[in-house]
Amino acid sequence: MATTSTSALSASDASRPHVVIVGGGFGGLEVARGLVGRPVRVTIIDRHNFHTFLPLLYQVATAMLEPAEVAYPIRTVFGKAHNVRFRHGLVRHVDHDRRVVVLGDETELAYDHLVIATGATAAFFGIPGASQHAIPLYSLADARRLRNRLLSSLEHADAVADTAPIGLNFVIVGGGPTGVETSGALSELIKTVIRRDGLHLDPTRVRIILVDMAPRLLTPFPEKASAYALKELERMGVEVEFGRSVVEVEEHAIRFADGERLRVAAVVWAAGVTANGTLASDVQEDAGPGGRVRVSPSLQIAERTNEWAVGDSAAIPNGDGGFYPQLAPVAMQSGRHVAAQIVRQGEGKPALPFKFHNKGIMATIGRHAAVATLPKGPTVKGTLGWLAWLGLHLWYLVGFRNKLRVMINWTWRYFDWPSGPRLIMADAETAD
Amino acid sequence: MATTSTSALSASDASRPHVVIVGGGFGGLEVARGLVGRPVRVTIIDRHNFHTFLPLLYQVATAMLEPAEVAYPIRTVFGKAHNVRFRHGLVRHVDHDRRVVVLGDETELAYDHLVIATGATAAFFGIPGASQHAIPLYSLADARRLRNRLLSSLEHADAVADTAPIGLNFVIVGGGPTGVETSGALSELIKTVIRRDGLHLDPTRVRIILVDMAPRLLTPFPEKASAYALKELERMGVEVEFGRSVVEVEEHAIRFADGERLRVAAVVWAAGVTANGTLASDVQEDAGPGGRVRVSPSLQIAERTNEWAVGDSAAIPNGDGGFYPQLAPVAMQSGRHVAAQIVRQGEGKPALPFKFHNKGIMATIGRHAAVATLPKGPTVKGTLGWLAWLGLHLWYLVGFRNKLRVMINWTWRYFDWPSGPRLIMADAETAD
Repeated sequence: MATTSTSALSASDASRPHVVIVGGGFGGLEVARGLVGRPVRVTIIDRHNFHTFLPLLYQVATAMLEPAEVAYPIRTVFGKAHNVRFRHGLVRHVDHDRRVVVLGDETELAYDHLVIATGATAAFFGIPGASQHAIPLYSLADARRLRNRLLSSLEHADAVADTAPIGLNFVIVGGGPTGVETSGALSELIKTVIRRDGLHLDPTRVRIILVDMAPRLLTPFPEKASAYALKELERMGVEVEFGRSVVEVEEHAIRFADGERLRVAAVVWAAGVTANGTLASDVQEDAGPGGRVRVSPSLQIAERTNEWAVGDSAAIPNGDGGFYPQLAPVAMQSGRHVAAQIVRQGEGKPALPFKFHNKGIMATIGRHAAVATLPKGPTVKGTLGWLAWLGLHLWYLVGFRNKLRVMINWTWRYFDWPSGPRLIMADAETAD
Repeated sequence: MATTSTSALSASDASRPHVVIVGGGFGGLEVARGLVGRPVRVTIIDRHNFHTFLPLLYQVATAMLEPAEVAYPIRTVFGKAHNVRFRHGLVRHVDHDRRVVVLGDETELAYDHLVIATGATAAFFGIPGASQHAIPLYSLADARRLRNRLLSSLEHADAVADTAPIGLNFVIVGGGPTGVETSGALSELIKTVIRRDGLHLDPTRVRIILVDMAPRLLTPFPEKASAYALKELERMGVEVEFGRSVVEVEEHAIRFADGERLRVAAVVWAAGVTANGTLASDVQEDAGPGGRVRVSPSLQIAERTNEWAVGDSAAIPNGDGGFYPQLAPVAMQSGRHVAAQIVRQGEGKPALPFKFHNKGIMATIGRHAAVATLPKGPTVKGTLGWLAWLGLHLWYLVGFRNKLRVMINWTWRYFDWPSGPRLIMADAETAD
C-alpha cells in the first residue's frame, strides 16, 4: 500500500468507502492524517474551521500568545490531500441504523465508517455557579474570555487606585498541569503589567490562590516533581492550598467547604474534564465513565465494526480493568490506530487491539521552570525541563508557520517582554 | 525646555496642569506623545486598551493579518513616560463649566486642558438596513466580523457544492482607498482558499462588485492613479460599477437606485465617515460638517483656550474656506500641533495656527500593485508603489515588535501564502 500513487485518488471517487470523522482535535486529525492517500474518502467535520492546540490555551489566556498562534485552519492541514475534505458544522445526531450523521443545518452525511473524536470539555461536577461564573480553558473562546477578564480587572484596579484602592484575588481551581501552568503564567503577567505598563497596583494586594482537594500538585507526576512545582509556584508568589473544595461560585466570589467566602476578580476552572457533546447516547445505551463512549480494545463501539471512538471522548480500556487517561498523546496514538485499522479492514485483515506507548509527561511552571517525567527515566526539572517542554510543544504545534511564529514570540519573551498582546477585545465575553 | 529632566516629573505631581485626551487613535496618541516629559500631567482615555492601526483593518478582514498585528496596547506606548497615564473607559459627557469629563461608570475626571480625539466611524447616510446588515471597517470588531462573514460564506458554499451549488456575490460600497484595497484583498483571498484550501467553489460563480456613485475610483488621487487602480482591479476579476447608488441593504441582499436587487453573501461599507460619539454637542451648540467639532485655526473649541479637538473628530479649517480631509496624516499632525500649543501656553506664548503638510497619499490594490501620489511629484505605481506603501505603513505601525511581526508576515505572503490566519472565531459576530 505504501507505494500506491495518491494522485489518482479524489474525494469524488464515490466507489471508495466514506470515513466520516467528527471532531478536528488531536484524535480526529490523526485519523484523517493516517488515511491520506489511502483508498477511502474522508470527511472531517468540526464546528470550528481550525484545530486548537489546547495545551497552550493558558498562554493565550495570560496574553503571551495570540489566538492564531495556537489555532490552525483544518483546511490548510489537508490542502494537498485529495481524498480528505473538511466540513464546517456541528454534528447533532448519529443514526447508526441508516449510517448517517445529521448536521446542525439538518443536512445528512452518509458514512461507511464513523469516528467519534469530539474530545472533552470542563467538568463542573454540579457545583452551583461554576459553569456560569468560573472560566475553564477548553476552547479558544474560553481563553479569550479569561484574558479579557484578567486584563479588565487589572484596568479597573488601576482606574480606582487613587480614590478607592482595591485588592485583587484570582483563584485557580485544580492543581493538575493546566492549573499549575495557568497560576505561574498569571503571576508573570501581573509582574509584567505592573513593571512594564505602569499599572498602579499594589503587588502585595494581588493574591493568586491555587486550590485543590488533593494533598499535592500534578498527581500523575512523581512526588519529586510535585514538590518542585510547589516550591517554584510559591517562589513566584502563588499561594497553594491543599485539601480545599469549592461549594459555590458567584459572579464575584467563591465559597469553600470550610465556610470561607472570598471576593474574586476571576475563578479559573481547571478541576477536570468530561466528554464533549451528546453523541455518546446516540451510539450506545450506557455512556462510559466521564460521559465517554465505551470502546473495545480495538477502539470499536458496541461491537460494530465500522464505528470507532478516539481520544478524550472515548473510554479506552488500558488492559488492567481501567481506562487510559484523557491526554493529548493518548488521543493522537488512538487516532493513528483507528486509521490503521480502517486500512486493515479494507485489506480484509482483522482489527488489532490498541496499546498506548507512554513517552512521558511534562508541565511548565514559569518562564524558566518546568518538570518532565519519562515513564522509566528520570524527572527533569528547571531550565532543562523548560527547554524540553518548549521543544516538545513546538514539535507538536501543527504547521511550520505557527512553529516559527511561536518560536519568535517565545524567544522574545525569554529575553524581554515589552509588548505582548495584552489586548482586551470587547466581544470576547460572549459564549463560544 | 528640551533639557528639562523628565525623571522628576510624575503623574502624581498635582501642581502640574492636567491634560485629558479623549481617544487613543492617531490624533490622541500624538497629543500624548508630544507631552511626554513636559510640565503637565496627561491622562489618555479610550474605550479600548489598544490603539488600532485603521489603515490595515482590511487586511484583518481578509485574513492576511491577525488582530494583534494592527492593535497595540496604549499602556505599552507610554510605559516609560512618567507623566502619562492610561485610563480604560468610555467618556459619556463633558461638563466644560465644571471642567470635568464623566466616564461610563459615573466617575468624574477634572481637567485643565481637554483634547477631543474621538475619531470617526462609518456614515450610513440613513440608507435603510445599511447600519444593520452592511459591515464597515472602522474597528477591530468590524474587521473580525467581516472576516467571519467572508470565511463562513465560503465554507457554506463548499458544504453545499455537491448537492445544491450556489454562487457568491460580495459587494463593496465605495471606491475610496478602503473600498479599493478591500476589493483587491478579497479577490486574492478567494483565489487562495480555492487553490490552497481545496475549497469546492466555482470561481466563475464568485463575483466581487465594487460600486460607487462617482465616475472614478480614488477621487482624491490624480486621474492617472484612478485609471491604474481600475485596470488592476479588473485584471484581478473585480467588477467595478460607477454611478450606482444603494437604496437599501437587506440581510442577504442589496437594492440599487436603478431597481436591481442582488443576493449577496456580504456587503462591505466603505462609503464615507462621520465623527464618532456624542461629545460634539457637549462642547458647542452647532456641530460642524459630518458631526465634527468646529475648531479655530489653532484647533481650539468655541474660543475657549483650554479645549481642543484633533483628527477625524475635528472640522479643521484649511484656510480656503473648507476643511482638511479626515486622513491619518491630518490627525497625527493636528495632534502634534495641539501638544505644542499646550506647551507654549504654559510658557505664556500665544497659540499658533495649524497648517497641514501634505506628504502624499497611497493605496494598495493587491500583492504587487499600489499607487502613491506626492503632492507636487509623480504618481508612483506598480511594484514600486507597493514597496513604498509597505515601507510607509511599517514606518507608522506603532511599536517595533508589531513592525517585525507584520514584516515577517508580509514577506511570507509575498513569496508564498500557505497558512494565513483564516480562522472563524464564533464570538466575533457581536457588536464592538
